[in-house]
Amino acid sequence: MGNCIQGCKDYFSRQKNTNIRLTLPVVCFVWQIAMIILFGVFIRYDEESDTHWVETKAHENITSDIENDFYFRYPSFQDVHVMIFVGFGFLMTFLKRYSFGAVGFNFLIASFGLQWALLMQGWFHSLDPHTGKIYIGVESLINADFCVAGCLIAYGAVLGKVSPVQLLVMTLFGITLFAVEEYIILNLLHARDAGGSMVIHTFGGYYGLAITWVLYRPNLHQSKRMQGSVYHSDAFAMIGTLFLWMFWPSFNSAITDHGDGQHRAAINTYLCLASTVLTTVAISSLSQKTGKLDMVHIQNSTLAGGVALGTAAEFMISPYGALIVGFFCGIISTMGYIFISPFLEKTLKIQDTCGIHNLHAMPGVIGGIVGAITAAAASESVYGKQGLINTFDFTGDFKDRSVLTQGGYQAAGMCVSIVFGVVGGAIVGSILKLPIWGDPADENCFDDEVYWELPDEEEEHQESIPPILEYNNHMIHKQQDLSESNFSVEHCES
Amino acid sequence: MGNCIQGCKDYFSRQKNTNIRLTLPVVCFVWQIAMIILFGVFIRYDEESDTHWVETKAHENITSDIENDFYFRYPSFQDVHVMIFVGFGFLMTFLKRYSFGAVGFNFLIASFGLQWALLMQGWFHSLDPHTGKIYIGVESLINADFCVAGCLIAYGAVLGKVSPVQLLVMTLFGITLFAVEEYIILNLLHARDAGGSMVIHTFGGYYGLAITWVLYRPNLHQSKRMQGSVYHSDAFAMIGTLFLWMFWPSFNSAITDHGDGQHRAAINTYLCLASTVLTTVAISSLSQKTGKLDMVHIQNSTLAGGVALGTAAEFMISPYGALIVGFFCGIISTMGYIFISPFLEKTLKIQDTCGIHNLHAMPGVIGGIVGAITAAAASESVYGKQGLINTFDFTGDFKDRSVLTQGGYQAAGMCVSIVFGVVGGAIVGSILKLPIWGDPADENCFDDEVYWELPDEEEEHQESIPPILEYNNHMIHKQQDLSESNFSVEHCES
Amino acid sequence: MGNCIQGCKDYFSRQKNTNIRLTLPVVCFVWQIAMIILFGVFIRYDEESDTHWVETKAHENITSDIENDFYFRYPSFQDVHVMIFVGFGFLMTFLKRYSFGAVGFNFLIASFGLQWALLMQGWFHSLDPHTGKIYIGVESLINADFCVAGCLIAYGAVLGKVSPVQLLVMTLFGITLFAVEEYIILNLLHARDAGGSMVIHTFGGYYGLAITWVLYRPNLHQSKRMQGSVYHSDAFAMIGTLFLWMFWPSFNSAITDHGDGQHRAAINTYLCLASTVLTTVAISSLSQKTGKLDMVHIQNSTLAGGVALGTAAEFMISPYGALIVGFFCGIISTMGYIFISPFLEKTLKIQDTCGIHNLHAMPGVIGGIVGAITAAAASESVYGKQGLINTFDFTGDFKDRSVLTQGGYQAAGMCVSIVFGVVGGAIVGSILKLPIWGDPADENCFDDEVYWELPDEEEEHQESIPPILEYNNHMIHKQQDLSESNFSVEHCES
Repeated sequence: MGNCIQGCKDYFSRQKNTNIRLTLPVVCFVWQIAMIILFGVFIRYDEESDTHWVETKAHENITSDIENDFYFRYPSFQDVHVMIFVGFGFLMTFLKRYSFGAVGFNFLIASFGLQWALLMQGWFHSLDPHTGKIYIGVESLINADFCVAGCLIAYGAVLGKVSPVQLLVMTLFGITLFAVEEYIILNLLHARDAGGSMVIHTFGGYYGLAITWVLYRPNLHQSKRMQGSVYHSDAFAMIGTLFLWMFWPSFNSAITDHGDGQHRAAINTYLCLASTVLTTVAISSLSQKTGKLDMVHIQNSTLAGGVALGTAAEFMISPYGALIVGFFCGIISTMGYIFISPFLEKTLKIQDTCGIHNLHAMPGVIGGIVGAITAAAASESVYGKQGLINTFDFTGDFKDRSVLTQGGYQAAGMCVSIVFGVVGGAIVGSILKLPIWGDPADENCFDDEVYWELPDEEEEHQESIPPILEYNNHMIHKQQDLSESNFSVEHCES
Repeated sequence: MGNCIQGCKDYFSRQKNTNIRLTLPVVCFVWQIAMIILFGVFIRYDEESDTHWVETKAHENITSDIENDFYFRYPSFQDVHVMIFVGFGFLMTFLKRYSFGAVGFNFLIASFGLQWALLMQGWFHSLDPHTGKIYIGVESLINADFCVAGCLIAYGAVLGKVSPVQLLVMTLFGITLFAVEEYIILNLLHARDAGGSMVIHTFGGYYGLAITWVLYRPNLHQSKRMQGSVYHSDAFAMIGTLFLWMFWPSFNSAITDHGDGQHRAAINTYLCLASTVLTTVAISSLSQKTGKLDMVHIQNSTLAGGVALGTAAEFMISPYGALIVGFFCGIISTMGYIFISPFLEKTLKIQDTCGIHNLHAMPGVIGGIVGAITAAAASESVYGKQGLINTFDFTGDFKDRSVLTQGGYQAAGMCVSIVFGVVGGAIVGSILKLPIWGDPADENCFDDEVYWELPDEEEEHQESIPPILEYNNHMIHKQQDLSESNFSVEHCES
Repeated sequence: MGNCIQGCKDYFSRQKNTNIRLTLPVVCFVWQIAMIILFGVFIRYDEESDTHWVETKAHENITSDIENDFYFRYPSFQDVHVMIFVGFGFLMTFLKRYSFGAVGFNFLIASFGLQWALLMQGWFHSLDPHTGKIYIGVESLINADFCVAGCLIAYGAVLGKVSPVQLLVMTLFGITLFAVEEYIILNLLHARDAGGSMVIHTFGGYYGLAITWVLYRPNLHQSKRMQGSVYHSDAFAMIGTLFLWMFWPSFNSAITDHGDGQHRAAINTYLCLASTVLTTVAISSLSQKTGKLDMVHIQNSTLAGGVALGTAAEFMISPYGALIVGFFCGIISTMGYIFISPFLEKTLKIQDTCGIHNLHAMPGVIGGIVGAITAAAASESVYGKQGLINTFDFTGDFKDRSVLTQGGYQAAGMCVSIVFGVVGGAIVGSILKLPIWGDPADENCFDDEVYWELPDEEEEHQESIPPILEYNNHMIHKQQDLSESNFSVEHCES
């Protein structure tokens, strides 16, 4: 009897309304107008992007325009920007029929998210108490992109199972939560996290996992035919992988200290990621009978090292230390895809489309731990007196903090990011469970057909008709020719 | 009777000669040799790229090599370079069977165009009256890429309907016209147009539209089967879209003033484009019965904001001002694809393959108007006294110009770009109508087959033979094996 | 009788064991652990990436962090990094079924290679005699990427015919040989080669050609069905081509002198490559009956100019000189694909999958010659006294060297790179011939199936079933529905 009810439920859930013609435009318009109003009230150029820069220069005795922060950070900003839009976007195109959704919705939510992030981060980090304004420059843009990254990670967990409206809601709350946890971790706890192992990856990972846990679909197997990749979709995904991998040194160094800080963060990340590739390949090969490699591992686990070095990249972790972190991350992340993901799905009912647990959540936690240990182990003999102060920003209220205390606060920061991710995700997931957002039925998941006008591929298929069908095909063409000539006749007679 | 003549004409036009084995190599060789000669006569390194830089430094009391303009502009130059070759190239790969032509011919005409642009822009803007030489540096390269962009925009209108020789001719004249109108607008009228809303996009857009209007093909419907996209070609096109979108802040800031000028232009463009994405999605969703999105809009209209901020990006348009421009551009451009393009095609006989009217011409005009208004509304209270002078370059002959006058000249500049585009395009279109350029017949448009050796896809199709054909297929393979073993036998006997 | 033995051999070679489940993980793990140990012993941050930078600044009277070498070279480094991983990786995806191997193995060997290169180049170029340490900064990362490029070029010759274990072995020895020949050419002979015409391209080219000559497969025709491209694989390859082409100015200028050196190298390469495109198109069109273009030429020969300007890019070759180099390289490289490659394969038994002879070896030699001539022709009147010293680094032991002598040493350098490539490649090829590396059988070459878990494409093919099969297809679906409903029933009953 209960089975019948289940059957009925299944039947009706098939009738899900995925018409978003009202909700999507309304959300886009209303939110964008709200952004314009809030930007009008709050956001201004900072002194380095304002025409008064010429006066600032004179006032602060700056001799050259090259001292403008733009020239320190803009190349890294552009690399990060590519990671957000091409990197995350194309990484998720691996599904055979969800490339439009992967790239397109990634584009949409990132574009909304960065605006909202400028406001949220501005209110928490850089609201001028006298003028009530937020002053933005190139570093603000990078931070906004970082903030968006947290939400795009979460998108990876629910890829193919939600509507664009749900994604926008998820992004709205995700950015909000991000700004709060970031404020607690970076400002209150005064933890360091330049590349965001904790703030971005751990938070984003658990946020997405908690949401997909709440949105669990017991009948997702009905979309199983759409859940794999095809040859070319895997090649597209490698575009995303490589742009993430190549530009990760810019990601981890984008907002670190000028000079040696940016320099060292880039070197560490470069080395760490190289090491990750080798161990990922090793474990992937071990996992198959004949040693064949699995594209899922190459596409994802090779990036785990960048995640795990997010916190420690600017520290004096030393080149071989970076290699060691990458070494273990490649192993752990690949093993995650082989053993943990199936376990999460079967036992914990967490359906994690892109395996963000293995690429972001776990390596993020490792990154937090590595950061805490490296900070606690820092010494004046290695860093130099001033170097230690600069690296950990032991100034102002924190000028007497010891490295051991710093290590403790780093660890505390990681806990904060996990709690925000899990609790926040669970709450937001519940909101997204409301039956008003136009999400697809279980049997239509991972299918662009639901939200996109797809090209009519008939013509292409005619081309791929095998030789023995040529005769029939020929007939079809003949008919077409006939109708065309009819058309011509009509055309002539007119 | 007249109908019969038409019929005859149609018949003969099918016999169009698309053999370009003579014309294409001749044009390439002759023009490239001409470039070498002209470069030998005119082009030299400027003082920042010449080995005498060490003396220049001493002479001008420059303390560090980092003051070399290379370090201010090279990262932006590389981003612009990516936009020209990958951005424009891949944006046009959306057609199912014109990817080679889109990327390949884009590659060809940009490579020729940038050489010719260095000469043309050099003669007009930086010919040294004493030595008779043009001195080039990184800013010249950016300007050459900009100049090429105008012609690539025009290519979008005629995509798939012209031969590479026609494209080269179109580029030759396009660059020439560009240099003249740019000289009038920037030097004579002293209008500001750092990101080229008028100079690049308005001119390029109307130039292309006028050409395609002259080249109107009444029987283009005969190629209708080739005019759509397929799933993967749309994914390729998104690579183009995203690289254009991400690097547009570099485009609009590449040649603005050092320091705050570049900084502000990048911020404004970043914000404007984010806003455009949301309204594009909203209108695209509204345009379909069930709210589905259309890839054509996402691929194109999301970029309109960058076009429209080309002129005003360096002004103090303020962050919310940038968002507003993006807001309306997304709406207008998407509506253009829905309503205006069909109208242009049916009523005005303008066949605009990529819809450049909606992506470049219209947003370019909006950009010109926004620029004129923003300039006219500029005030010393917002810009600061020196800031106003720097931003609008009120020096030398123009030191007494008021902002209102400047606004007027901006508007005048826009008219110049439209006139040059329309008139120039009409004339060049007439030249391209000559039956000597090897353009494809109406029924062979949008088909790479005409100008490219295409890979033999037989093998791939054999792979895609459905199960019920397996037997026959098996037979084919058997036969192949047989012939191979024959071969082996022969090989053995020899 | 001998033929029979040959036949038996052929038969057994088909049974080749491509199981790499033991060797690949072992090599990856052992080598990566070795890297960690060696990095722990030898590699340290240099003074610009160490936290002691603040003291260095004070000590050397550096006023601003912007003087850190990071800001001179990091944008170029990132461009080079993209060339190595996306450029080389995607350029080789042109084969219809070897995209995973092209991108994936490129990724693997580059990631290993750059670590080994940091050590090898460090030992030869920058080992501190007092501390016994190698100090690395951003320039070291660029040099490591350059070193890797040599091995990736060699990969192009053996693409599809070797196992990943062979590739790793080839890279290990390749990097080692590279560091030695580089030391001889740059340090002992004091030749200049900023963009590596000799050191990278000539060496890498001949290294790969010698290896593939030793590994000659007389029965490679058995894989002929896999040796072509398909439409979309050619489009993917164009991504590689364009990123190589666009970023080549960064490649050639990445490690040249600060200021005018980087500036000039970028300008020269930009111009040279533009010129190459036109002549490549011209020759490609001439080579076909109806003037059609060949994608192989566009994908490869357009890059020959960048290779050939590797040595001379930083010299005062003058803009028209750069155009001339590009002009001839486009012609020679394209002719190479048309005439020389078939000759090499038939007569010299060199099976060069990607045609690296035409893209790297030949243009590299041209580059060496151009470099030698340009150096020998350098004069104080053109370079200025100090400029000449700076450009050719006529300091220390070499302060009395004349430009003519320099030209001679440049030519000597080229010979060294050829000898190292040919002899080294022959030896390494012999090692790779051992039957323990898991290389594919002749009939399984160019097929990802051997080393990759490929996605099951059945579903996609069902989609492409032509209309007349719809009925049967319908039946299949019905059956599927049936089995699904069975499943549901079972599910209900449980």
